[in-house]
Amino acid sequence: MSTAEELDAIGIDRLREIGSLKWSVFPEAIGAFVAEMDFPPAPAIAAAMKGAIDDGLTGYLPAAVRTRMTEATARWQRDRYGWDVPAERIRPVPDVLTALRATIDYFTAPGSKIVLPTPAYMPFLTIPAMHDREIIEVPMLVEDGRHVYDLDGIDRAFADGGGLLILCNPYNPLGRVFERAELEAVAEVVARHGARVFSDEIHAPLVFAPHRHVPYASISAVTAGHTITAASASKAFNLPGLKAAQVILTNDADAETWARPEVAWAEHGTANLGVIATTAAFDESREWLDGTLDYLDGNRRILGELLAEHIPDMGYRAPEGTYIAWLDARGLGIEGSPAAFFREHAGVAMTDGIACGAAGEGYLRFILATPRPVIEQAVRQMAAALREHAAR
Amino acid sequence: MSTAEELDAIGIDRLREIGSLKWSVFPEAIGAFVAEMDFPPAPAIAAAMKGAIDDGLTGYLPAAVRTRMTEATARWQRDRYGWDVPAERIRPVPDVLTALRATIDYFTAPGSKIVLPTPAYMPFLTIPAMHDREIIEVPMLVEDGRHVYDLDGIDRAFADGGGLLILCNPYNPLGRVFERAELEAVAEVVARHGARVFSDEIHAPLVFAPHRHVPYASISAVTAGHTITAASASKAFNLPGLKAAQVILTNDADAETWARPEVAWAEHGTANLGVIATTAAFDESREWLDGTLDYLDGNRRILGELLAEHIPDMGYRAPEGTYIAWLDARGLGIEGSPAAFFREHAGVAMTDGIACGAAGEGYLRFILATPRPVIEQAVRQMAAALREHAAR
Repeated sequence: MSTAEELDAIGIDRLREIGSLKWSVFPEAIGAFVAEMDFPPAPAIAAAMKGAIDDGLTGYLPAAVRTRMTEATARWQRDRYGWDVPAERIRPVPDVLTALRATIDYFTAPGSKIVLPTPAYMPFLTIPAMHDREIIEVPMLVEDGRHVYDLDGIDRAFADGGGLLILCNPYNPLGRVFERAELEAVAEVVARHGARVFSDEIHAPLVFAPHRHVPYASISAVTAGHTITAASASKAFNLPGLKAAQVILTNDADAETWARPEVAWAEHGTANLGVIATTAAFDESREWLDGTLDYLDGNRRILGELLAEHIPDMGYRAPEGTYIAWLDARGLGIEGSPAAFFREHAGVAMTDGIACGAAGEGYLRFILATPRPVIEQAVRQMAAALREHAAR
Repeated sequence: MSTAEELDAIGIDRLREIGSLKWSVFPEAIGAFVAEMDFPPAPAIAAAMKGAIDDGLTGYLPAAVRTRMTEATARWQRDRYGWDVPAERIRPVPDVLTALRATIDYFTAPGSKIVLPTPAYMPFLTIPAMHDREIIEVPMLVEDGRHVYDLDGIDRAFADGGGLLILCNPYNPLGRVFERAELEAVAEVVARHGARVFSDEIHAPLVFAPHRHVPYASISAVTAGHTITAASASKAFNLPGLKAAQVILTNDADAETWARPEVAWAEHGTANLGVIATTAAFDESREWLDGTLDYLDGNRRILGELLAEHIPDMGYRAPEGTYIAWLDARGLGIEGSPAAFFREHAGVAMTDGIACGAAGEGYLRFILATPRPVIEQAVRQMAAALREHAAR
């Protein structure tokens, strides 16, 4: 595990030299728009992958390698979230979006609409159209400064032809970690309509105390019966390019459906080194993650302090989980897209909230998994841009 | 590059310990049923992947990394096959089957049938059903002991509703490397029907002199106009589990179609380390490949000598390309599946030809990319099994 001092010392020049997506799309700007980490990999993960390379374990995915990952995932779910799910019900997939596509195709009624709380992870807004499916956006409500589900809105969306609710918990981009009672309330609405849930829980390892991740399918027989869960080590251990995630099936009928060749095809693209990295992540990198979470915990607080000092009109509530900050730029007096403004005038590349749905207009999505000096430099550049340009 | 002596010295115990798919599905048998290599990776490939791991280049696939692969692929096609194709027309995909699925969905008329020369790579026989598409099998003919296309049969298949011909060149499982004139004759039939071709050329780097690989789309404006080509370093450099291959588009209309989000989705699962490995393969591992081809050339000859000595009634013609031997077991007096016979009585696991289509009945698919002592042991065990059991 790198120390906080070592992470602090990773400079922008070095990040550009490595050339991750975040640091190469906008070569002049600070990269804060894509949810990936700027930190070196966990040593156990790097060692496991290098060992596999030396062995030449680069052919077709062996069953034993796959099983080691599903068993490691089962241990992880049990140890970290208290959820006992058999390894046989955990299926390898390349990524959460492949899991979503299979869910839409094979686990929802043909033509039924997709119910999507917004703001949402951007691809959730574009994928349903590839399946000729309509989306019903249900904007989150704000209660005591905290985003909560609009249960009546979800209810109306189901009544209006919705068949699948996409949950994202911990919530990208809002940073919420939902409490059991909140999830139970959602489940009640879903069950009333006989609908299905796709629960994206790939940020689950990234939760800050005292919050706790509650797997949606784990809360009752009812949620186990209507949920397809997607899990992954990709976010917490920075492995999205390695193509390994997990679908967790929690009822017999879904397991039977999944076994059909055209459905199980979703497993096809799962890559060896991703599977091996995931196993090392869940089984051997827990301390590394705890250290990384400590650092991220500092980052979310420091961002708050920096904004309070330099851009006090920027709305921010530290995320309960994820390394995504959801910034409210509506009070800054910026005309048009705040992301375009800051990219052009501050040299800071963030996602415009509007890409997360209409409910995101005026907001910014800022990725916190970066060295602290980068956060400080970003905020200073944003404050300077506001001083120079915002009043035009 | 390992020497022939080093490759010879890789023992079965070590292969089982590594645990590739080929050496783990049938733990008691010699693994010869899946087209993967038992050799250590090319040093440049291993080094490139390890460097990326140290850098933590495990996030989302950066454009520059993708472009380095498509440019390396363009160089490879030009240098090795004399085909000048712009890098922009080379698209990353996770594997050849993903490319085939996209081709069926977006480059053929709805409901049109798939024309498949047989024996064929096994998944080509099962994938069309996932798209509700019928297959018309067109068995290859034998002329002077060599497999050739049944042009009349292909013609009739198109007349019967065929819309897409799947070519595989070099031919898995037959080992043919088609001559220009043979491909031109196929093209004439395809063009007459206004049909399309999916050309699987992932074995192209594996061709034995004096044979030469001719990319089907390269032979004329007509073939460029009706072909989707799939290329990959996966077979020759043993990388199928790393999830990187290439689609080569050779006309403007196809490039436009590919740009649609639901079509370009085929690129989504392409994995970083596979892309990085492929770049190192095409750019930096040519000598390694030449050495490996020398060894495989020896293997294909040695198999012939061993069969002539120990199982003279087994039909075998050394492959012109690929590391796949297609064995004619029809004259051995085995009742039922020859693969089942040899797996049970000889402890040698091969693919039964019937899995490659009806035309494969009585044949065996044996993978040659293994240490020579393994080939010798396999043939000896098969011969012993025949002596003990075949006459029952």
